Amino acid sequence: MERHVKENPSEGQSPVTDPGHSVKCSPVVIDDVLLNGTTLDIPAAEEFIHQSMAIIIEDAVKKATDVREKVCEWRSPDQLKELLDLELRDGGESDSKILQRCRDAIRYSVKTTHPRFFNQLYAGMEPYSMVASFIAEALKPSLYTYEIAPVFTLIEDAVLRKMMELIGWEEGGDGIFNAGGSMSNMYAMNLARYNHSPDIKEFGLSAAPRLVMFTSQECHYSVSKAAALLGIGTKNVYVVPSDKRGKMILSALENKIKAAKSEGAFPFMVNATAGTTVLGAFDPIEEIADICEKHNLWLHVDVTNSVAWNPHKMLMACLQCCAFLVRDKTSLQLCHSSGASYLFQQDKFYDISYDTGDKSLQCSRKADAFKFWLMWKALGSSQLEERVDRALAMARYLAEEIKKREGFRLLMEPEFSNVCFWYIPPSLKNLPDGPDHCNVSSVILQVAPVIKERMMKTGSMMVGYQPHGDKPNFFRMIVISPQVSKQDMDFVLDEIHRLGKDL
Amino acid sequence: MERHVKENPSEGQSPVTDPGHSVKCSPVVIDDVLLNGTTLDIPAAEEFIHQSMAIIIEDAVKKATDVREKVCEWRSPDQLKELLDLELRDGGESDSKILQRCRDAIRYSVKTTHPRFFNQLYAGMEPYSMVASFIAEALKPSLYTYEIAPVFTLIEDAVLRKMMELIGWEEGGDGIFNAGGSMSNMYAMNLARYNHSPDIKEFGLSAAPRLVMFTSQECHYSVSKAAALLGIGTKNVYVVPSDKRGKMILSALENKIKAAKSEGAFPFMVNATAGTTVLGAFDPIEEIADICEKHNLWLHVDVTNSVAWNPHKMLMACLQCCAFLVRDKTSLQLCHSSGASYLFQQDKFYDISYDTGDKSLQCSRKADAFKFWLMWKALGSSQLEERVDRALAMARYLAEEIKKREGFRLLMEPEFSNVCFWYIPPSLKNLPDGPDHCNVSSVILQVAPVIKERMMKTGSMMVGYQPHGDKPNFFRMIVISPQVSKQDMDFVLDEIHRLGKDL
Repeated sequence: MERHVKENPSEGQSPVTDPGHSVKCSPVVIDDVLLNGTTLDIPAAEEFIHQSMAIIIEDAVKKATDVREKVCEWRSPDQLKELLDLELRDGGESDSKILQRCRDAIRYSVKTTHPRFFNQLYAGMEPYSMVASFIAEALKPSLYTYEIAPVFTLIEDAVLRKMMELIGWEEGGDGIFNAGGSMSNMYAMNLARYNHSPDIKEFGLSAAPRLVMFTSQECHYSVSKAAALLGIGTKNVYVVPSDKRGKMILSALENKIKAAKSEGAFPFMVNATAGTTVLGAFDPIEEIADICEKHNLWLHVDVTNSVAWNPHKMLMACLQCCAFLVRDKTSLQLCHSSGASYLFQQDKFYDISYDTGDKSLQCSRKADAFKFWLMWKALGSSQLEERVDRALAMARYLAEEIKKREGFRLLMEPEFSNVCFWYIPPSLKNLPDGPDHCNVSSVILQVAPVIKERMMKTGSMMVGYQPHGDKPNFFRMIVISPQVSKQDMDFVLDEIHRLGKDL
Repeated sequence: MERHVKENPSEGQSPVTDPGHSVKCSPVVIDDVLLNGTTLDIPAAEEFIHQSMAIIIEDAVKKATDVREKVCEWRSPDQLKELLDLELRDGGESDSKILQRCRDAIRYSVKTTHPRFFNQLYAGMEPYSMVASFIAEALKPSLYTYEIAPVFTLIEDAVLRKMMELIGWEEGGDGIFNAGGSMSNMYAMNLARYNHSPDIKEFGLSAAPRLVMFTSQECHYSVSKAAALLGIGTKNVYVVPSDKRGKMILSALENKIKAAKSEGAFPFMVNATAGTTVLGAFDPIEEIADICEKHNLWLHVDVTNSVAWNPHKMLMACLQCCAFLVRDKTSLQLCHSSGASYLFQQDKFYDISYDTGDKSLQCSRKADAFKFWLMWKALGSSQLEERVDRALAMARYLAEEIKKREGFRLLMEPEFSNVCFWYIPPSLKNLPDGPDHCNVSSVILQVAPVIKERMMKTGSMMVGYQPHGDKPNFFRMIVISPQVSKQDMDFVLDEIHRLGKDL
């Protein structure tokens, strides 16, 4: 490509003032591009940020969390496309137009921070965590090295240490915040495999025997995704049956391990779940740990080897805030290192043990730990504990109410914050009683989807539903947010009845 | 666990007003937890958010981007730990204390948006993208389903379509925003493998022959990380030599493919790099595509199969903003699907083709596309193009200046926005001239680390350095931000000379 550097540009071009530099200088033009001065109008940008902050506070914080406002403003995909004018064009738009786009994006988004959003395993507005996430977004740190992210690498280190202390790892361990629980499970499976056969890192699995891992039928789907990605193969994830409450059956685990061995395969890992996605069930971790010790298997989510912990769920840190923790202090680095010289120079002038990039599967990595740290600082461990206690008490209150009310049937006593239940409209109330009898009814299958459609179109609340094994569609309530009260629980049941009583 | 539901609580407890519900009601207590009313003080939270917004605008936006302020306020890890008081305690802290912690976190963070931050492949403050990220953080959408993220799933779809249009895929394709370029490369390798042997998803690699992929010695380290994770094995990544400018040598690629086949291995993929990390070199993609076609190999980063594109780099979208694009319309879903029934119900009342969760390796996934969409709307394609042109012109200006100035030596003519150069202090100027002769000097190796240490302790700017092959430590400047001017380029060279002239 030709270069045309004009040091003394053609006549008619006047000296340029460079904002922030306050010196007059001759314009420099290369390939018709003027290089003097900035092309970003900082005062205009500040004005835009001020105005958008006002919209964010008013619409995305105050209105979004106001119980009198809608949880969602339902539009079909085609309607919403029309409203949002999604097309990206050659020309730009004015700031006032962009501010209107911000208002629209907020208006038609689901308000996951609304007190009546119970649809997912996260909920509520956590002001400290939100502010921390704004700071991180504005500063754009990436946590590969201390050099680029001095504050945030130290904060991550402090948070990880405290989390390991709470788990009870007196000797400490290692860990890394990452882009989600699915990724934490991937880390765990990779470390378990590395622990079993470190050569696989270099030589791959085609040179290795068939490795087999075990998990319950209730586990999160990320385990099978990770097995596919890691080249383990989904069929080498042996699914252990769970009991009625969703807990892994120990004798079945033993049998599966024996079966794998008798096939000539090599068991390397058990994935245990503490709080399953649908039922909120806890696998019997101590007993599983004994089986793992006997067969020399890596146990994930436990007190032995590794844990995936998402503070963005029960503890309300802003999305995403996910830690993978491992008791072993070296394998996270050994298993994932690649030693990129442009980031991890060994001749740096500071203690490079805070350069975490070589432990990570990601290169750029966000300061998610800060979102947890700032709220932890503000609330203290004690208030975090109170929130968890309150959420569990709220789940128990809801379960008691469901048992009292006609037309509602509990799937099972809640073990955690998940409350699963059916709504039986009056027209169906002569069906045989009790949850087990619901199985035979294919009519009940259609109740939850219709009520869900109606609640979304009304925008009054959001509660998830799904089938599970032989159980037809039921509602799954998750109660986490401290903004939620007993009155909201009552409202949920009243509203389901209101929306579904004609079915 | 025992349950104690007190409907009519003991005397002395007075009726409770539930904010937002405005009805008096009897307190309900379960296991000593009072369930009436919210426990979050919304007006106090709003006040805190207002105050922190003011700090963010003043310190994290205005001061952070002001050329007269420092880029970094260097402290050693031990000093900084002391200053930040990282420990997490049982008790919480007052809002004013937390606001001070916000100020401190900003103060001691590296200002990656400062006009003189040239250390990484991202830089600058992009107000529209930043505001979009604040909105996404406040709303907490997760992009698994249209139901939870109607606005953002549609926006992601629109942005992906536009990106594919720009690439020139007239027939469209598929794609997904994800947690970083490293992850995009993982997606690519997994799809390439799936394309070669779909059975590996279920049966794993232990049942498969040895698969081999090819990439240049200049490729990003995430390729080898992914090979380890995916069970391919780092030794099955055949490294193809590059020429002096950092471009893959085509005859060497052919030879490596032949060698792999003669060993009985199965080549399945070539990873090409368009803008290498250090030198900013472009592999000869069209010629590599011909070789891939001949040998029936998947080509990543190309016009044939798949592309990893990070708008958070050259286009300045907020971190992280990374798209993986694939020409094939079905394999992203087929390769990664697991079909979790609690998210991807088939009896939904809307068009579920916008439920993207089953394509993704992540479960929770952020609305990163929105950060790109809003700025694209504001700037239009035309201004995005201008920014890229300006960055490349700026890189050429810097290269010309380096050639003119005594004491500076260009590693090579820049092909992209990376400008690599040595600084030779006056005391070393009698060394043999020219970059090639620098190789013989081990003295030059120590110059860049010392200047880097001095610039960070001064806080005047940040420029990265590294060795590369047989080349001793050199500086690598990346110029992206529209806030950067020709004067900043001059400053960089002046400042390096000022900091290093006594060496």
